[in-house]
Amino acid sequence: MTQPKTNAERAIELHRKLRGKIEIHSKTPINTMEDLALVYTPGVGAVSSLIAEDPTQTDLLTWRKNTVAIVSDGTAVLGLGDIGPEAALPVLEGKSAIFKAFAGIDAVPIILATKDPEEIIRTVEILAPSFGAIQLEDISAPRCFHIERELERRLSIPVMHDDQHGTAIVVLAGLLNAVKVVGKELGEIHVVLNGAGAAGVAIARLLTTAGVRYLIMCDRKGAIYEGRDGLNEEKIEVAKITNKEKKKGSLADVSVQADVLIGVSAPGTFTRGIIQSMADAPIVFALANPVPEILSEEARDLGVAVLATGRSDFPNQVNNALCYPGLFRGMFDSGVEHVSDEIKLRAAHAIADSVASPTKDSIISTMFEPGLHTRVAESVKNA
Amino acid sequence: MTQPKTNAERAIELHRKLRGKIEIHSKTPINTMEDLALVYTPGVGAVSSLIAEDPTQTDLLTWRKNTVAIVSDGTAVLGLGDIGPEAALPVLEGKSAIFKAFAGIDAVPIILATKDPEEIIRTVEILAPSFGAIQLEDISAPRCFHIERELERRLSIPVMHDDQHGTAIVVLAGLLNAVKVVGKELGEIHVVLNGAGAAGVAIARLLTTAGVRYLIMCDRKGAIYEGRDGLNEEKIEVAKITNKEKKKGSLADVSVQADVLIGVSAPGTFTRGIIQSMADAPIVFALANPVPEILSEEARDLGVAVLATGRSDFPNQVNNALCYPGLFRGMFDSGVEHVSDEIKLRAAHAIADSVASPTKDSIISTMFEPGLHTRVAESVKNA
Repeated sequence: MTQPKTNAERAIELHRKLRGKIEIHSKTPINTMEDLALVYTPGVGAVSSLIAEDPTQTDLLTWRKNTVAIVSDGTAVLGLGDIGPEAALPVLEGKSAIFKAFAGIDAVPIILATKDPEEIIRTVEILAPSFGAIQLEDISAPRCFHIERELERRLSIPVMHDDQHGTAIVVLAGLLNAVKVVGKELGEIHVVLNGAGAAGVAIARLLTTAGVRYLIMCDRKGAIYEGRDGLNEEKIEVAKITNKEKKKGSLADVSVQADVLIGVSAPGTFTRGIIQSMADAPIVFALANPVPEILSEEARDLGVAVLATGRSDFPNQVNNALCYPGLFRGMFDSGVEHVSDEIKLRAAHAIADSVASPTKDSIISTMFEPGLHTRVAESVKNA
Repeated sequence: MTQPKTNAERAIELHRKLRGKIEIHSKTPINTMEDLALVYTPGVGAVSSLIAEDPTQTDLLTWRKNTVAIVSDGTAVLGLGDIGPEAALPVLEGKSAIFKAFAGIDAVPIILATKDPEEIIRTVEILAPSFGAIQLEDISAPRCFHIERELERRLSIPVMHDDQHGTAIVVLAGLLNAVKVVGKELGEIHVVLNGAGAAGVAIARLLTTAGVRYLIMCDRKGAIYEGRDGLNEEKIEVAKITNKEKKKGSLADVSVQADVLIGVSAPGTFTRGIIQSMADAPIVFALANPVPEILSEEARDLGVAVLATGRSDFPNQVNNALCYPGLFRGMFDSGVEHVSDEIKLRAAHAIADSVASPTKDSIISTMFEPGLHTRVAESVKNA
């Protein structure tokens, strides 16, 4: 008797069969010389001339204003680390397929044969006229912060590092509903955030912007506070807006009486002792993927009130794909040039609001929730 | 009564309506969490891991080996010149639509915000892992020669500047049939080629490789010969393999008794006097576009035996699109890493052979000729 195939085996089989999950099509038939004379020469010459006179016409006459470049150097692919740009390509294709299926957006995977931040910045700047927005993906911290910031400065189209802001937006969405479930207030909860990489830094910033007043971020050395030795530029900035009491100590030390524990760190980091030391009705986001900081069964046994993970096979999946299709749709439709804090907050609220009655096992909807992506897009348009 | 719309007006209207002629689709439905778990996380992680171990698997598990980047800096768009990268985008989209419709290839338009050759080379090199081949397009001479040569050297995927080689291949295809129509031999004809830009240089090289022994290339200063003052690097190379008798003088001077006159130059360059001075049964390729070097009616009145132009509304259209879909299809299917002379010659013969019985008004088939692109692809595979 043969074993049933694992998800991994079936995924590899599907990829072998498809040889690429996405493809490009002409929107209009090319069946006659007359068709050709409109799509290509000589007709296209008139379109080129119009754009030459006024390059802003590009957005009305080409696919640009519906097109995202998803750019990666392969230095932080999923939870697998620096495994090379080619290994990022299947992930980017997956995102492209999702962009189209859920928001009608054309997304082009671009993997880069360089890890040098300045070269990445210049390359994306040179490519930028081809696209209406840039999504940075799977680029390691702390390089990702400088790359994103510099591109934001140089370009007048939206630039967003999804591992930072996509994650932060969905975490905030989940947290908004989780506090409702346990009857607490966002401004009163004590949050401990473990992991100071791309996602951690963005989560700390967005939660603070959203009104979380008590937040301590930890890295491998424990709590981050203003003045701690050896902080990089990002952590220095985060230290300024978090941990106002300048608490010191390990993750376990600062987690005592915490209401919320968020991990963007490593499997098994949230021990029994840590969870047991938290306040009543603890909320735990264990987002390490595929193996979370604490296993689902263990969290339940320890009385965790609300658990979210990055996994699709548990309830409450924190999945960036809840956010980016609608977010970019909204930005394209409203002509937004930069991803502001207001846009991020609105998107998070839209995702939270797509759950009509949050319960412990449904603080976050799935990607297939009817109206979710449209709701996110609308929220951005109203910003 | 309203005027009927011109082709240009209809082309602009179509582009406004479509907002982009191409779009990206998922090849596989994403309707359930199970679909998502194969296309995206967690399943895609297994695919990424496979590629991390062996990057050559990328060609079997992603869209790369069926994907061309069409790259332009907008410095030589159609006959319109240096009108900016945005103005090239509708042309690249048209090529992409053709690539898919005629050869099932996914082609991504990439326009560049730089004109610096070294930056263009480095940018394309950095992007290259994303694609299975690079088509350079609408890049001005002589910059295009260095850019193409350097990319050929650095990359192990096919790189081809279509304005050079696509044009040269189709010109050779047409010429092979034109000499049949007039009963002359390729090795015996005297060819004068006017225009020493991207297309001119490539045509001179390919015709020589194909067996044309008597060829003189002219630029604005007249015949190019070894030792002439002020020749750029490309012209020096061409001078070595053409005009062995070192004929000097104007286009009119060297065209006397020519069998073939090929123009990749400017409207009106082929005067009555020039045509009348040619040998019996003159063959004229007047490829300036949209207004050719000599008008069709005038050529007929002057007894031109075979006339080819770049226009779709006259017989014998020299159109690169006869070549590139099948050529890249064949290169992908056979794993070719470089576009060799043999490949170009085979493609030209395949295009010529797709016309069963050449006549003066059909030395070249149209893009819709059944089997044309497959025939070109097969010829490359046999190289």
